[in-house]
Amino acid sequence: MGTVVTNIKRADRAAADALARYGVATVHEAQGRAGLMAPRMRPIYRGARISGTAVTATVTPGDNWMIHVAAEQCQEGDILVVAPTSTSESGFFGDLLGTLLQARGVRGLIIDGGCRDVADLEAMGFPVWSRCISAHGTVKETIGDVNLPISCGEQLVNPGDVIVADDDGVVVVPRLAAADVARKSQQREQREAGIRARYAAGELGLDMNNMRPRLAEKGLRYVDQADLDLG
Amino acid sequence: MGTVVTNIKRADRAAADALARYGVATVHEAQGRAGLMAPRMRPIYRGARISGTAVTATVTPGDNWMIHVAAEQCQEGDILVVAPTSTSESGFFGDLLGTLLQARGVRGLIIDGGCRDVADLEAMGFPVWSRCISAHGTVKETIGDVNLPISCGEQLVNPGDVIVADDDGVVVVPRLAAADVARKSQQREQREAGIRARYAAGELGLDMNNMRPRLAEKGLRYVDQADLDLG
Amino acid sequence: MGTVVTNIKRADRAAADALARYGVATVHEAQGRAGLMAPRMRPIYRGARISGTAVTATVTPGDNWMIHVAAEQCQEGDILVVAPTSTSESGFFGDLLGTLLQARGVRGLIIDGGCRDVADLEAMGFPVWSRCISAHGTVKETIGDVNLPISCGEQLVNPGDVIVADDDGVVVVPRLAAADVARKSQQREQREAGIRARYAAGELGLDMNNMRPRLAEKGLRYVDQADLDLG
Amino acid sequence: MGTVVTNIKRADRAAADALARYGVATVHEAQGRAGLMAPRMRPIYRGARISGTAVTATVTPGDNWMIHVAAEQCQEGDILVVAPTSTSESGFFGDLLGTLLQARGVRGLIIDGGCRDVADLEAMGFPVWSRCISAHGTVKETIGDVNLPISCGEQLVNPGDVIVADDDGVVVVPRLAAADVARKSQQREQREAGIRARYAAGELGLDMNNMRPRLAEKGLRYVDQADLDLG
Amino acid sequence: MGTVVTNIKRADRAAADALARYGVATVHEAQGRAGLMAPRMRPIYRGARISGTAVTATVTPGDNWMIHVAAEQCQEGDILVVAPTSTSESGFFGDLLGTLLQARGVRGLIIDGGCRDVADLEAMGFPVWSRCISAHGTVKETIGDVNLPISCGEQLVNPGDVIVADDDGVVVVPRLAAADVARKSQQREQREAGIRARYAAGELGLDMNNMRPRLAEKGLRYVDQADLDLG
Amino acid sequence: MGTVVTNIKRADRAAADALARYGVATVHEAQGRAGLMAPRMRPIYRGARISGTAVTATVTPGDNWMIHVAAEQCQEGDILVVAPTSTSESGFFGDLLGTLLQARGVRGLIIDGGCRDVADLEAMGFPVWSRCISAHGTVKETIGDVNLPISCGEQLVNPGDVIVADDDGVVVVPRLAAADVARKSQQREQREAGIRARYAAGELGLDMNNMRPRLAEKGLRYVDQADLDLG
Repeated sequence: MGTVVTNIKRADRAAADALARYGVATVHEAQGRAGLMAPRMRPIYRGARISGTAVTATVTPGDNWMIHVAAEQCQEGDILVVAPTSTSESGFFGDLLGTLLQARGVRGLIIDGGCRDVADLEAMGFPVWSRCISAHGTVKETIGDVNLPISCGEQLVNPGDVIVADDDGVVVVPRLAAADVARKSQQREQREAGIRARYAAGELGLDMNNMRPRLAEKGLRYVDQADLDLG
Repeated sequence: MGTVVTNIKRADRAAADALARYGVATVHEAQGRAGLMAPRMRPIYRGARISGTAVTATVTPGDNWMIHVAAEQCQEGDILVVAPTSTSESGFFGDLLGTLLQARGVRGLIIDGGCRDVADLEAMGFPVWSRCISAHGTVKETIGDVNLPISCGEQLVNPGDVIVADDDGVVVVPRLAAADVARKSQQREQREAGIRARYAAGELGLDMNNMRPRLAEKGLRYVDQADLDLG
Repeated sequence: MGTVVTNIKRADRAAADALARYGVATVHEAQGRAGLMAPRMRPIYRGARISGTAVTATVTPGDNWMIHVAAEQCQEGDILVVAPTSTSESGFFGDLLGTLLQARGVRGLIIDGGCRDVADLEAMGFPVWSRCISAHGTVKETIGDVNLPISCGEQLVNPGDVIVADDDGVVVVPRLAAADVARKSQQREQREAGIRARYAAGELGLDMNNMRPRLAEKGLRYVDQADLDLG
Repeated sequence: MGTVVTNIKRADRAAADALARYGVATVHEAQGRAGLMAPRMRPIYRGARISGTAVTATVTPGDNWMIHVAAEQCQEGDILVVAPTSTSESGFFGDLLGTLLQARGVRGLIIDGGCRDVADLEAMGFPVWSRCISAHGTVKETIGDVNLPISCGEQLVNPGDVIVADDDGVVVVPRLAAADVARKSQQREQREAGIRARYAAGELGLDMNNMRPRLAEKGLRYVDQADLDLG
Repeated sequence: MGTVVTNIKRADRAAADALARYGVATVHEAQGRAGLMAPRMRPIYRGARISGTAVTATVTPGDNWMIHVAAEQCQEGDILVVAPTSTSESGFFGDLLGTLLQARGVRGLIIDGGCRDVADLEAMGFPVWSRCISAHGTVKETIGDVNLPISCGEQLVNPGDVIVADDDGVVVVPRLAAADVARKSQQREQREAGIRARYAAGELGLDMNNMRPRLAEKGLRYVDQADLDLG
Repeated sequence: MGTVVTNIKRADRAAADALARYGVATVHEAQGRAGLMAPRMRPIYRGARISGTAVTATVTPGDNWMIHVAAEQCQEGDILVVAPTSTSESGFFGDLLGTLLQARGVRGLIIDGGCRDVADLEAMGFPVWSRCISAHGTVKETIGDVNLPISCGEQLVNPGDVIVADDDGVVVVPRLAAADVARKSQQREQREAGIRARYAAGELGLDMNNMRPRLAEKGLRYVDQADLDLG
């Protein structure tokens, strides 16, 4: 406890920025269904979609001191990712800290604890994904770490990784994988556009992907309800 | 496992369609306070109100294959109802499957698991009631059943039953009871209009329903706070 | 069980009304981080902010009879606060009772149970903070208490206390503390305005509050990532 | 609401009795991984293992009246299965009702609500699997159904089905499948005995089931940590 | 915040001691189904049953300082009741504090937070009912209150009230009601002994309490399954 | 996905073994209150206390294939640590896999998912700490990783780290810190022995640690209840 790592390596800026375009669900698929935070991590308001490079911090339950320390390590294009060392539903973050981070070019906050001032944060356009909404204030007594690897939302986050967050949740992309995942996300999106058109035209996935033989092989059988009723 | 029941009997179309008019709370009361799914079944966006006939399906945790199989059994006016065989917060359903179902005239999805692409689903007007929002993708490896009775949202759903869903949640109406429940819902709504007018005019339920004698009989007593303070 | 306390002393009206201006997070801080209900108490729709004097009631699981009894004790400027005697997710409250309370000048409802008709309640502008949204109807068979101290949302509420509720949650202010808390809230808000301006201008909390010496004293140390990698 | 079905068909007694021998995990596998209740259904004490035929009942939140009605429909070898119509953590069942059921030869209770008097129930050897332990008493005001299909622990239960319950949870076996599932359970147990012996002797599942080629085909690759560190 | 109330009035010692005899479920019924804490309040080991007079304390999340302050206010026959001001799963209490309290004659702890050293506490026979088991340590930085009314386990507790706790949970008996509740508990237990004997002899509650006419009046009807199948 | 890291560096054996002596709460304190898994990670039976070196694995929801792959990487003195890539309450592990691991000298399992066959596992003395107990079987279709860093129980675990687990939960000690933490744990235990003796003799923490001046400085004040009543 008590280490602040400075001058962290960040993911390539262009790749980090590009990932917001594809959204959480596509990025999560594109990197092989890895890195998705638990569904309890919800946006405090709907409609935001961001990506950026992670600055990580740990806080102790009911204590938000390290967010101030972490803020200094943040720069334009970062997303701050905060995990309490034990379950805590305190409101670690509000519109004042939102103002401070926004002034530094931080794009949003991911916190596995509570957030408050949610109406103000929405009004100022600073998005937060949190475990809960809670107005319960915190103290400034105990130190933690900044920019060490952490577990947040039940996922491992390394400083400099890319975070993508939208109405579907939050996904972590490893620092060195960002460009590759961006490329695969784009490919996936193109492929999905084709599928969407065929589905919209009434085609079934059963036919489009030739699923019937494999389903039959697994033992799937069709029974008319009338015959079932006789059974 | 592995049975698809075809040609199911559905509730009367007119009755099934009519129930959306009354909404979940009224329908639930009209059928004697039965059939309401657990409160964890929440709409992915606010403001939708639908009713339709149930096509049912089971999936295994983390596997959405059977949604493709079920889609073929759906027709205009249906609502797809999906239950995992064990608790799972994977994102079984997204905008591609939403497109497929919408093209078949399906009015919405009820799933006791996760849903993703919620911003896209809202934009295209395909409502979903789900256990959670989760972008976590699924595989296509294991078969389940379509159109057998299932337990979804802690309620029993038979294929062909009517589903009503709105901002209050999801309620199941047995197939053969639909017309009767629609009639009772209308009566209830008329009665409530009268009550609402009297409440709006300042009348108390205590007086309107003559509750005072029965409350007194149960032992209710009134004490002035000043006397209580002396006690 | 079965006591209705009448003619309760209420907090000073002007102080009670003033507290809505500051919101839950500020009021909670201003009174020393006390009185905040648990985060499960959520508004049924976003954007409402109210304050008022508490009328309290207990109900038994699945039974909303006492809300009718409590309604008679409510007057202009009150907020009704209801707690079931045991966990219950029934829908104790809907638009009919909302109409009745609104006609009496009640500003909103706080209930540690379920609420239904949420679309109607939003349309009529009657805000509710509840444990869940549930259409499950209730009976009228069992009596409880009105205007005795209760535990709601894991906080103690005395009749006549001030309730403040907004998108951040619900906070309770003791009856006799209202004026003092209003004054402190205003001071806090002024102080925060100054902090916000300095944060917006790019100043760090570390500098503004001279945190660095105390952090160092606690043992915080800074390490360049390059040196860490060598370790 | 309000129907008691009498003279229900029950699963074959010998088959129903035999299933306790194999336990929940084996039975669940033997019938194709179906019918397992949600993990929240836990035994009030450890070490019991029972099987028997289901008598089903619904109760309303906070009301245990129908357990008395259901008791009359129970006979030697039955297990009573009770589901509230909406989430309720009241203590619907205690040692008095346990005495009543035990006198009728009922082997245990499955209830998707609360249970009380757990020390007494353990002392008298009447096992219960419940959603929670709660001493909160209930009223007798509202009727429900007995021996209609219900959803309990997120599974469908038909009257006459076989229930198997032990420290692992609760599983439902359809009435007509009991004998077949008993046979498959026995086969599975024999097969597992062989596997256990080989595992105990140090053999790996990778080798015993020839998993390596299929894992390689899926893309599994082995990397020495020393090489990873160089990466 | 920051008030310690000394020389509190306690419930009559004999009455407080007597209540352990009857247990939580009986006491809860005897006082009209009031005062039961939420089911999440569970014993850290099974088999303890205690009653005693409450000393109350509030702590802040992650901070156990006030337990030391409260300990000084405890005397022989007390039970310490602790509530965090916001949800916290830290381990506020372990075997050292257990030793301290036991030395003062305190009979147990009720805490709406985490407890640790549970094996040691069981070995030394100091029972705790807590929200969870957690080894997460706490700091000593923030003050709270001792012997003011608190909300713990979703119930109101006044200093000097009687606490009864066993395997069924925790119930609060108001200070001045203790003797009356003890008397009613004894009566209830005698009545239950008679009922138990009749149930054990095979009598039904339906007959013993003459429930059949009232059930019929509510609309309960009996249908033979054979007739139902024809329907 | 799909990487198995072989020949991992493990913590010093003697240090890893020594940590079981001190238990989770002491070790957690000794390393500065870090590394404790979430309280949902509970032992399937009480009384086990183990420490060992971590082999890590990820599985996909409802799929336990990678446990077979991980088993081969385990050796005498290891503890297997498994995390699903998304919340899953399937029963990934039972007595067969327990036999396999026990034969390799593995001391126990930590899994952020379900475990089954708990009675058998207790009988054979193979301890498991899991998210839940669930008999729900799993498939073998999807690959994951072995011996990469994972997030389990909301903590970061690196392969080769030391795991300590007992009735209080599970704590992770970084590989290179094991010897230092063992030393500090021993010191802490000695210090605690002294404190315990003084507490047992009736001394207060207030006096022993000279807390009174600092409490007074924070504003703590003592009020006799008689004076409070006059207020």
